[in-house]
Amino acid sequence: MAYKTDIEIAREATKLPIQEVGAKLDISDADLVPYGHDKAKVSADFIARSQSNKDGKLILVTAINPTPAGEGKTTTTVGLGDGLNRIGKKAMVCIREASLGPNFGMKGGAAGGGYAQVVPMDDMNLHFTGDFHAITSAHNLLSAMIDNHIYWGNEEKIDMRRVVWRRVIDMNDRALRQITTSLGGVSNGFPRESGFDITVASEVMAILCLANDLDDLQKRLGDMIVAYRRDRTPVYARDIKADGAMTVLLKDAMQPNLVQSLENNPAFVHGGPFANIAHGCNSVVATKTALKLADYVVTEAGFGADLGAEKFMNIKCRKAGIAPDCVVLVATVRAMKMNGGVAKGDLGDENVAAVTKGCANLGRHIENLKSFGVPVVVAINHFVTDTEAEVQAVKDYVHNQGSEAVLSRHWELGGEGAEELARRVAEVADSGMAAFSPIYPDEMSLMDKIDTIAKRIYRADEVLADQKIRNQLKDWEDQGYGNLPICMAKTQYSFTTDPSRRGAPTGHSLPVREVRLSAGAGFIVVICGEIMTMPGLPRVPASESIHLNDNGQIEGLF
Amino acid sequence: MAYKTDIEIAREATKLPIQEVGAKLDISDADLVPYGHDKAKVSADFIARSQSNKDGKLILVTAINPTPAGEGKTTTTVGLGDGLNRIGKKAMVCIREASLGPNFGMKGGAAGGGYAQVVPMDDMNLHFTGDFHAITSAHNLLSAMIDNHIYWGNEEKIDMRRVVWRRVIDMNDRALRQITTSLGGVSNGFPRESGFDITVASEVMAILCLANDLDDLQKRLGDMIVAYRRDRTPVYARDIKADGAMTVLLKDAMQPNLVQSLENNPAFVHGGPFANIAHGCNSVVATKTALKLADYVVTEAGFGADLGAEKFMNIKCRKAGIAPDCVVLVATVRAMKMNGGVAKGDLGDENVAAVTKGCANLGRHIENLKSFGVPVVVAINHFVTDTEAEVQAVKDYVHNQGSEAVLSRHWELGGEGAEELARRVAEVADSGMAAFSPIYPDEMSLMDKIDTIAKRIYRADEVLADQKIRNQLKDWEDQGYGNLPICMAKTQYSFTTDPSRRGAPTGHSLPVREVRLSAGAGFIVVICGEIMTMPGLPRVPASESIHLNDNGQIEGLF
Repeated sequence: MAYKTDIEIAREATKLPIQEVGAKLDISDADLVPYGHDKAKVSADFIARSQSNKDGKLILVTAINPTPAGEGKTTTTVGLGDGLNRIGKKAMVCIREASLGPNFGMKGGAAGGGYAQVVPMDDMNLHFTGDFHAITSAHNLLSAMIDNHIYWGNEEKIDMRRVVWRRVIDMNDRALRQITTSLGGVSNGFPRESGFDITVASEVMAILCLANDLDDLQKRLGDMIVAYRRDRTPVYARDIKADGAMTVLLKDAMQPNLVQSLENNPAFVHGGPFANIAHGCNSVVATKTALKLADYVVTEAGFGADLGAEKFMNIKCRKAGIAPDCVVLVATVRAMKMNGGVAKGDLGDENVAAVTKGCANLGRHIENLKSFGVPVVVAINHFVTDTEAEVQAVKDYVHNQGSEAVLSRHWELGGEGAEELARRVAEVADSGMAAFSPIYPDEMSLMDKIDTIAKRIYRADEVLADQKIRNQLKDWEDQGYGNLPICMAKTQYSFTTDPSRRGAPTGHSLPVREVRLSAGAGFIVVICGEIMTMPGLPRVPASESIHLNDNGQIEGLF
Repeated sequence: MAYKTDIEIAREATKLPIQEVGAKLDISDADLVPYGHDKAKVSADFIARSQSNKDGKLILVTAINPTPAGEGKTTTTVGLGDGLNRIGKKAMVCIREASLGPNFGMKGGAAGGGYAQVVPMDDMNLHFTGDFHAITSAHNLLSAMIDNHIYWGNEEKIDMRRVVWRRVIDMNDRALRQITTSLGGVSNGFPRESGFDITVASEVMAILCLANDLDDLQKRLGDMIVAYRRDRTPVYARDIKADGAMTVLLKDAMQPNLVQSLENNPAFVHGGPFANIAHGCNSVVATKTALKLADYVVTEAGFGADLGAEKFMNIKCRKAGIAPDCVVLVATVRAMKMNGGVAKGDLGDENVAAVTKGCANLGRHIENLKSFGVPVVVAINHFVTDTEAEVQAVKDYVHNQGSEAVLSRHWELGGEGAEELARRVAEVADSGMAAFSPIYPDEMSLMDKIDTIAKRIYRADEVLADQKIRNQLKDWEDQGYGNLPICMAKTQYSFTTDPSRRGAPTGHSLPVREVRLSAGAGFIVVICGEIMTMPGLPRVPASESIHLNDNGQIEGLF
């Protein structure tokens, strides 16, 4: 049997006018700001008016440590949303926006897959509603204003060697990673070293995704540290007087984007911060607005549960004052097999023993998630090659852990294939079982917070951090930043910092290479290993084959 | 009497839903791609279907050499459009989009002024419908692909010292004018010198504004020269395989943007190429589509008539196969006085003699415009301080030139104030008097084309160009580019290259400093004097005071 590609399925979608999708959430036409016929922003006025509504149930979709094949977290998020609607619930999904640049490197970027997708796929992978362009503009306005401030006399006495604010571009462009600016003489300013990151790595992106409203946005933008003086005191974006204009540039971008699933159910697609140096979740505004509009909100967090769900809980939920009522942990039989030691070429053969062995990774994530006080349902994202015995092996393993695994066929069947998962998730979310709390309090010292995550989530024996790093953390505590949560940046492929250590490793330590303060976003980034904030294009970039076909449709992007 | 500011007037506008504005042009809701409730793109399908419509009359608005006060070209364009509608004509205007970056330097950016404005002003001066962001992305994708091509083996054998394609950003950022890229080691590529221009200076912008459709767009993008090999043969964007993906990024940006005047009349605002190194007109797609939808289309060209109108005629009309039926030459009493030698502080005093003396500049523009075979109507853009005698002096002068000057009070009164101008312009446009032809044929040599413009328009005695420049032009002719038109880049303030020489100077020569080939846009840029392609921010940039007020309105941008 031949399966259709994601793009073929997406093209066959019968989309509702976005106003009809909005009507399902009781949003009037006047409160929708349309971008074409199939996308809209929800007006800030409407959001303000909906604050008195009762909150729906919040469902977080996360995953085991990913394998190269991908576990289908977004696909499951969308499928579960459709499944909930099919069983008569008023449900919507909240996911992140795609970054334009990387789509021109490697094919990719679909929002979900198979019959569990969000559309319009092409727009969402290109300019969409312009949010990322707005972030790029706001970020680079600040950059220009910093150099301009130095150029016209440097009243704030910025130490030119200590400008930490770089520039951003939504493009994979390795040539811009490290540059020298202001060459060419007096009228071009003072030469200095700098560089570009990709837009999703901007602190502005993280702030847009954590801010509650425009006032909060402007305050956080003003709080960003852009440079230091010779006496090491920080220079804030507010000192450069950039926060007002940046807020103006981000005014529209703060409004969540409404689109629809293939089954015409509403979805917010809004924000897309890096999942390493940032927290990797869609915007707080989108999630909180969705909770006011739907009875069930399904959202996801980047990477595996050790990184994504941990940050969702300890950063986003803590800051936004929200709490998940149920966590869905996505696993695949293929990933269990790989964790169980099966080589890539042999994944097609039934191997129940390997599946069971590989479940150790799954088991540890279940245990971790429960430690946040939230109930866990495992979703086995079905692949058509999975055998019944293999699926049963996962179910048995999870049952022995005191949880439940549900097979879900949303990729193949859409919402219909996710009905069983939806029923179980709704039951759990409605049960009141959840008693969420972050795993460390605000008052804990920064080093102890890192230690808590390392030991309780990663199961490391110890944190390795040299005196310089410890002193830096201590300095920030003295400056009043000790109450911030931690944003871990490490490999997504393992509980450890070694991507090849699959399963549920023990006996490792967590080496901290660097710490960074994101004073506007409001977290301390703890970097363990190499973090790339500007990707390059591959030898044969996707952009070489992306084009419009004779029907005006986009080819090569997906 | 206190006058309201442009922004106060714009905020009081009663905008129609954009669908109702579209309906005035017989565009159905389905053929409008809305961006919010007050902006929309006109679908490419609709444009294709409207090709069989009869063309309306084309009216070009241009001006005398500008003075620091500004002559009100856009204001007159909008006012004339409203005036035509008021006298019962089906008319629309076509103007350029504003560049985002410069608005954060100096206050400005309104589209028209007083009661002759196009709205929504704030959106149009910020992200609008994202066209410029799309151009930035397409341009920089090509930049990244060039460095990536070199990085992965340089199959095309690009001479790294001869990469002529730079990067762009829609921001005034002098620090990026000249940079060194790819520092930091092997994985970041090969270090080389480069820099950023402002987005409106991109050849991609010029192409978007000259392309007839998406096929033509892709062909032109592919034709752009991005670098040279050691043997001096050109490397095209097509060789880098970037043209397909760039076209995909520009697909939506190619569709004209529909907005409305304060009097709810339709306006296309589309494209915004530099008026020096490019041709400075709104897009061909917008103008040609407008001609299919309205009986009268009022459009404008950048700078004074010596630059803007000349390029409109010799580049845009020639390439697009369109021809103006009437030219409106905007003049102000203030500007005549300044041209007549009155100091800025004394402009408030009546001085009929100075007005008459200053009319020499106006007279030469009239003569020049007539040499294209088009009838000219002078619009005196009324300032409330003008005296009757001064206005009469301009009218008398123009009458003696065999043309007619009409006083227009659109700034103060909107379309009602432009009724007389509208009636006269409609009469002239309908009269069939126009017999347009460019002032040089395609077949003329490049050097002779430059000579023709210099002598017939600028009234220079000779063109000064050294042998290197003459050889370069000859080389391009040998390579098949001899049939291209010339795009002059010189000061807008004088017929000469000296901005201080006002009036109608003679006895000067035209020194050519540099020539550049825009092979995709399809013109040869002839640079006479300093051309800045990346502005800087002033000491106190507007961005320091731009902010949202307590009502969520933008302050400080206008």
